Amino acid sequence: MKPINVGLLGIGTVGGGTFTVLSRNQEEITRRAGRPIRIATVADRNTELANKIVDGKAKVTADAFEVVRDPEIDIVVELIGGYGIARELVLEAIANGKHVVTANKALLALHGNEIFAAAQKKGVMVAFEAAVAGGIPIIKALREGLTANRIEWIAGIINGTTNYILSEMRDKGLSFDTALKAAQALGYAEADPTFDIEGVDAAHKLTIMSAIAFGIPMQFEKAHVEGISQLTREDIAYAEELGYRIKLLGITRHTARGVELRVHPTLIPARRLIASVEGVMNAVLVKGDAVGHTLYYGRGAGAEPTASAVVADLVDVTRMHTADPEHRVPHLAFQADQLVDIPVLAIGDVETSFYLRMQVFDRPGVLADVARILADNGISIEAMIQKEPPEGVDKASIILLTHRVLERNVLAAIERIEQLATVDGAVTKIRLEELGN
Amino acid sequence: MKPINVGLLGIGTVGGGTFTVLSRNQEEITRRAGRPIRIATVADRNTELANKIVDGKAKVTADAFEVVRDPEIDIVVELIGGYGIARELVLEAIANGKHVVTANKALLALHGNEIFAAAQKKGVMVAFEAAVAGGIPIIKALREGLTANRIEWIAGIINGTTNYILSEMRDKGLSFDTALKAAQALGYAEADPTFDIEGVDAAHKLTIMSAIAFGIPMQFEKAHVEGISQLTREDIAYAEELGYRIKLLGITRHTARGVELRVHPTLIPARRLIASVEGVMNAVLVKGDAVGHTLYYGRGAGAEPTASAVVADLVDVTRMHTADPEHRVPHLAFQADQLVDIPVLAIGDVETSFYLRMQVFDRPGVLADVARILADNGISIEAMIQKEPPEGVDKASIILLTHRVLERNVLAAIERIEQLATVDGAVTKIRLEELGN
Repeated sequence: MKPINVGLLGIGTVGGGTFTVLSRNQEEITRRAGRPIRIATVADRNTELANKIVDGKAKVTADAFEVVRDPEIDIVVELIGGYGIARELVLEAIANGKHVVTANKALLALHGNEIFAAAQKKGVMVAFEAAVAGGIPIIKALREGLTANRIEWIAGIINGTTNYILSEMRDKGLSFDTALKAAQALGYAEADPTFDIEGVDAAHKLTIMSAIAFGIPMQFEKAHVEGISQLTREDIAYAEELGYRIKLLGITRHTARGVELRVHPTLIPARRLIASVEGVMNAVLVKGDAVGHTLYYGRGAGAEPTASAVVADLVDVTRMHTADPEHRVPHLAFQADQLVDIPVLAIGDVETSFYLRMQVFDRPGVLADVARILADNGISIEAMIQKEPPEGVDKASIILLTHRVLERNVLAAIERIEQLATVDGAVTKIRLEELGN
Repeated sequence: MKPINVGLLGIGTVGGGTFTVLSRNQEEITRRAGRPIRIATVADRNTELANKIVDGKAKVTADAFEVVRDPEIDIVVELIGGYGIARELVLEAIANGKHVVTANKALLALHGNEIFAAAQKKGVMVAFEAAVAGGIPIIKALREGLTANRIEWIAGIINGTTNYILSEMRDKGLSFDTALKAAQALGYAEADPTFDIEGVDAAHKLTIMSAIAFGIPMQFEKAHVEGISQLTREDIAYAEELGYRIKLLGITRHTARGVELRVHPTLIPARRLIASVEGVMNAVLVKGDAVGHTLYYGRGAGAEPTASAVVADLVDVTRMHTADPEHRVPHLAFQADQLVDIPVLAIGDVETSFYLRMQVFDRPGVLADVARILADNGISIEAMIQKEPPEGVDKASIILLTHRVLERNVLAAIERIEQLATVDGAVTKIRLEELGN
């Protein structure tokens, strides 16, 4: 049968992996897809490297626009990244009637609405399994596997760099800075790690999952994003003592008042399966009203795990290439005319439990003052530990876990607590989720 | 848009759940599927119960054959179970050009080849997500999400009853019989629990996953099946001491010599994520050559979790209802003319590690004799513990972990060990899998 022709834009880590996997598993992939999938052209600025990798098996060009305009190309795989030139290329590929497969979470989180509208109008598919959680088929699970459900919430460890750092901090008692350096030495963190450690990468992925789960447009700009760079090993140890682990979670929840969309360090019960996800591994926990809790676990990055998702999309698109658009799975799980615009809640309107840590001077009445302020703000206490100071120091640490409460109440309470003469410095606040219901 | 008409055969636990989920989430499901999915007719011998559940919203009949012959019905959902009448109904539905959705693992494991051939010939779909691991979309993951990969092996906790019993035995130090009674009291085990506790149910599900993973026909009759009824709390405790948990796993592996297809109690490292899957929960660990390890976790049984999978299949079939068969995902992941007949290995030809426990009279030279026999059979020892007897008893327990070795070598060694005058009674043998590569 006639092969389907793929134009590959970018032959870096994931592009190279895609080329390798397609070559190595060609026979099995063809047996599944029903026709061969062939990379016909590779576009990369580094044509020398590209030529070395493809070794004469595909055309190489430095001009990606040549590929998206080539009438011989059926599917364009965009692995360039970023949202400048990548956006232009994807839109032009769509305009030329080509299907697109992309691993570009930033592009979709920021320009997904525009891209999906263009694809819908032109009747082409844009597939993006590789954009979220690498090799884990989480987009397929959310979009097709759980269609029976009202999705209630999703909580995911969707950034391997930060999960590695947190695992190292907990296992070895390292500081954030030391663990980051270790991650960089191993290639798990980039030289400029900002996007990962500040939660931006996770927020991109969460934005995409939220849109699919709830049938809403991409709203990255409304996500609340906090990273892990302020976390201390002390907080990790205290959390452990209380039966919790700290993970950087991306959480999106459908509530009666709106959608929550937030990335931040989170205490979760150590006994939950997702709490045992260590190192660079990713996992996404999904709560549906019919299915209950399901969890999806695997490698969230790397050449071949990500290529696994790219190639799975290629097989899907190949199967549906000549089918009527009405038979296809909608880009965002819900039919394009059935998206709804549910507001994203400001973080102050989000209800969670909290871990609060403060340093207090060891004098009578301190705890009473703190407890009074919490009560005034409608915050009730679930657990408390007090850490006595070492000899000669007159400051003790108080660690509190609260019941569920609106964040704005906690912020108001913290402001007043920090004004107490008996409290030293700032109050540390970390959100806590039981992940039960 | 015109609704798609479903005929539901059997309105027991899963049938009732399917009716409930379709009604409750009708709006979201329609927004996803693009047209309403309506249960038009319900067939159940207990028409009184059926009428009570459907409450006038669907036709009720006692005659399931009426439904599979009804020209108004587009999709037949078979939830009767067993492989007598269910097989006839499914084949007749197919013969009448209807698509079929089924949760019937026994039917597919035993008659899947016949059923898929009939469906292929008639150009209809047979969907069966609910047949394996309840609400977890594992069929979709294997069939579509991991198409880029050569699947190397699958290891699954795919029977909630036995996992609940094993969890209780370990947590509370219960005997098998006591834990089984507790499971029965809670409705987690049936009055006649044989199919679950002897591993037959797990073997049905494993047979289906194996066929999809490797593109081979269903070969349930060649599966090696062992249950958990012979397991003792002592073995669970010794395994724990050595850093392992005992789970009933369904394992299928592609080797150069053939396919392994086996269900049996298995020691697995306690640090693996799947070792922490407790109670009635299911989990399937899949190793692919590109993606590495992925794991899928959730409820493997129950009304609504299983209904979640049934309804997801209904949405898939609804979308593809009028599409050309060539656009559809093949029943067994590989195109129907691309299945291959790889032999299933006899259990003696399977290579694993082993846990061996024996009682020995406390005399000099015992261990030397045992070690000699193991060495003679090419078995090397990975770890050993010796448990001294209580005061006044002259028998000690020896527990050995072996490196990987062919099972037939271990059986030969056990036969000789049991003949030693210094060894009392039978040697307990439990397979061990690291689940690493």
